[in-house]
Amino acid sequence: MGGEEIGRWVRKHRAILDAATAVFLRHGYLGTSMDEIAARARVSKQTVYTHFADKERLFTEIVAATVDEASDPVHAEVRQLQDSGDLEADLRDLARRQLRLVMQPRLLALRRLVIAEATRFPELGRTFYERGAGRTVAALAETFAGLAARHLLDVDDPLLAATHFNWLVMSAPVNQAMLLGRDDPDPAELDRFAEGGVRAFLAAYGRRPVPVSRTRSSRGGTARRARTS
Amino acid sequence: MGGEEIGRWVRKHRAILDAATAVFLRHGYLGTSMDEIAARARVSKQTVYTHFADKERLFTEIVAATVDEASDPVHAEVRQLQDSGDLEADLRDLARRQLRLVMQPRLLALRRLVIAEATRFPELGRTFYERGAGRTVAALAETFAGLAARHLLDVDDPLLAATHFNWLVMSAPVNQAMLLGRDDPDPAELDRFAEGGVRAFLAAYGRRPVPVSRTRSSRGGTARRARTS
Repeated sequence: MGGEEIGRWVRKHRAILDAATAVFLRHGYLGTSMDEIAARARVSKQTVYTHFADKERLFTEIVAATVDEASDPVHAEVRQLQDSGDLEADLRDLARRQLRLVMQPRLLALRRLVIAEATRFPELGRTFYERGAGRTVAALAETFAGLAARHLLDVDDPLLAATHFNWLVMSAPVNQAMLLGRDDPDPAELDRFAEGGVRAFLAAYGRRPVPVSRTRSSRGGTARRARTS
Repeated sequence: MGGEEIGRWVRKHRAILDAATAVFLRHGYLGTSMDEIAARARVSKQTVYTHFADKERLFTEIVAATVDEASDPVHAEVRQLQDSGDLEADLRDLARRQLRLVMQPRLLALRRLVIAEATRFPELGRTFYERGAGRTVAALAETFAGLAARHLLDVDDPLLAATHFNWLVMSAPVNQAMLLGRDDPDPAELDRFAEGGVRAFLAAYGRRPVPVSRTRSSRGGTARRARTS
């Protein structure tokens, strides 16, 4: 293919993906036809099949691309956390950003659609899970293990701690959105959930780097210690 | 109505509910017809409409009954927690039982169906949420406030603490089941999630009742204190 041909191919590919996303989100998986996608993308049905072998393949690609869009920046931020100089502030930033990304209306609608089809098309759900929560939790586990080695966290089981962080921040808003069908969360409310989740996580897994020589004099001197005595 | 007539009415009502549950779970909300429910329950379609005004009303009743069946015993156990003599053991028992009830195949399938229809029929999702997680969290909040007053927990915001308990225990298994479409969880794995969730909850919100006179000598003497110094 020449440059112009490649450009045309990429434009058509993009147009089909955009059209298909809109149609799937409006009519659900079963209610969507390749005819309707072709009409909306202004290409022939044959062209749709040239780009995507079948409806399931097309939907899987949409799920992967949409989840990656939210997951990529979270993943990058989790890796940076490793070198954090202010863990509490950085965890709070991460949690706020993660929650806002996950709670985007398009991603919520897609999550609902994938759940609806999970028993019929488990591959779709697996794609959504592994590229989304699964990937974030794996990265968090690696980072938390590193932070524990730096004595900034007290973590026996990094994977469990990562799972707890992820869901302390996300689960109340996500599960409410799923069941109540509200796709327009209040950003201030999301921030409150994120901050509350981080506070609980640090109360459970936080650890202050107290040098052995200072142990006695600093004992009971922190807010957290004071709260428990 | 005479006694025999009432008995017949109750039997038919039950038969319609059972038939409808099976058909909804197999074909989804939109794929289910009142004709099919009538045929399966061996009654006339007119009889179905005499018992339930329309398909949405019938489905809402099924959602409410199924959620209540899991939620009632959890609610009772949460109230008993108030008088707990061994909070850690009792929280662990509660978490294990709650998770097993919530992860019943029929309830998972129904949750998936309700999520699929949440934007079209928000009332269904509201029923599921309010009689399920919403009710449990409200009861937990009340109980945690009482336990804080007994100095057994350190809780500033009982509703947030209750939300955290609920999702520390439930969210990883529930969200995995939703997306991966697996409705046959391993009970031993569920117990591990429940126990891990309770450990994190107590690390974040637990408080030992240390009498003021013993504060100095007991300082640093507990496992939790030792871990953080």
